[in-house]
Amino acid sequence: MTTVPPESPPTPSTSPVPVDQDACLAVLGMLAYSELAAFSRLAADAALAPDLGQRLELSRLAGVALTNLDAIRARVGELGGDLQPVMRPFAGVLVEFDGRTVPSTWWERLLKGYVGYGVADDFSRMVAQALDPQTRDLVVGVLSDDGHAQLVVDALARACVADPTLASRLALWGRRLVGEALGVVQNVVADHTELEALLERAMADVPGNGDAQQKLFAALTAEHSRRMERLGLTP
Amino acid sequence: MTTVPPESPPTPSTSPVPVDQDACLAVLGMLAYSELAAFSRLAADAALAPDLGQRLELSRLAGVALTNLDAIRARVGELGGDLQPVMRPFAGVLVEFDGRTVPSTWWERLLKGYVGYGVADDFSRMVAQALDPQTRDLVVGVLSDDGHAQLVVDALARACVADPTLASRLALWGRRLVGEALGVVQNVVADHTELEALLERAMADVPGNGDAQQKLFAALTAEHSRRMERLGLTP
Repeated sequence: MTTVPPESPPTPSTSPVPVDQDACLAVLGMLAYSELAAFSRLAADAALAPDLGQRLELSRLAGVALTNLDAIRARVGELGGDLQPVMRPFAGVLVEFDGRTVPSTWWERLLKGYVGYGVADDFSRMVAQALDPQTRDLVVGVLSDDGHAQLVVDALARACVADPTLASRLALWGRRLVGEALGVVQNVVADHTELEALLERAMADVPGNGDAQQKLFAALTAEHSRRMERLGLTP
Repeated sequence: MTTVPPESPPTPSTSPVPVDQDACLAVLGMLAYSELAAFSRLAADAALAPDLGQRLELSRLAGVALTNLDAIRARVGELGGDLQPVMRPFAGVLVEFDGRTVPSTWWERLLKGYVGYGVADDFSRMVAQALDPQTRDLVVGVLSDDGHAQLVVDALARACVADPTLASRLALWGRRLVGEALGVVQNVVADHTELEALLERAMADVPGNGDAQQKLFAALTAEHSRRMERLGLTP
């Protein structure tokens, strides 16, 4: 039970509709689909978890994805959209990725959840920089780490100590995942021209050579390396 | 952001510990495991749902199961227990049931969710009548219909109209499900002697012939028939 201190003004229930509404709804639709996919994946991970503690923790994380989905639905509504039509264009995006990257062990599953979908999350986070502040903050909040990364890092670190060859196999799996994930982003950018102007704006201030797409891929690759290093795996 | 109106007294964080604490924790552990299983099942149903609308609705219902699990965890804590050890004795209960009743179609899956697990829910609801009022109300609240029944009834009614032979096949499937589910309840009663006295008390006021177990099975069968009739299927 929290009381609101008087100096903190209440969040307005609606906010000015941003100019680039199509792009805004596209990012929210992409993110909504990605949260729904995360929910399904974490729930399936939970059902396969080797012990009750991990099952409960992964289930809790699946619940966080649903809460995120509700927050996205609310913002889509404020912008005059409906969740389902806004999500639908992104429904097939991960199907091919999932078909190409079927994990063969529990550890590969965990790594895919962190490293594979991490690329998609980074993409959303980067293009969101060019959205209106309220939608941007929502996207960043939804994608803030909810404890999943730590669960994966802890579990994989323990497993790699117990089985030294696992680390090199997972490093290989990580490279495969990032290659496929970057392919997904490339397809999304190619298929969704409503995101083009947004991507240009989002990447304008990012230092580096090349056009917006080249900067984007450099940034996504750098974030991937950072995650692999956090796991103690060669990027 | 909610402020608490001064006239609404805060919910007490603890409440009197009931006398039959073991039985109480056993019912809560059984229910917690059943909610976790419902979460996994609904999330898997959602991932297989034929359209985005049903996928979102089934995901929402999976989220309700998680919210229920949190409420059970809180009550277990108030009674001085920990969720995991309290749940663990019931972890295997549904494994055999699930192995014996693998649905072969989407409609069989839906019916299993409503009719198969409905028996387990009824069992928890009935024994809960003999618990302390606060735990009893929690159990009844957790098991109150959250919209899943209506979703199943609507979807199956539409499907049976489109395919008249489906109704007779599903009626057969329903009889198989209830037979297996009653077997699960029988095993739980046999394996958990801490529930014996509770069951006696819960069934004492239920009219009918026979001992507590006979009355229990008569009541469970009657509830099953009611559900099948609601679906327009021969019990």
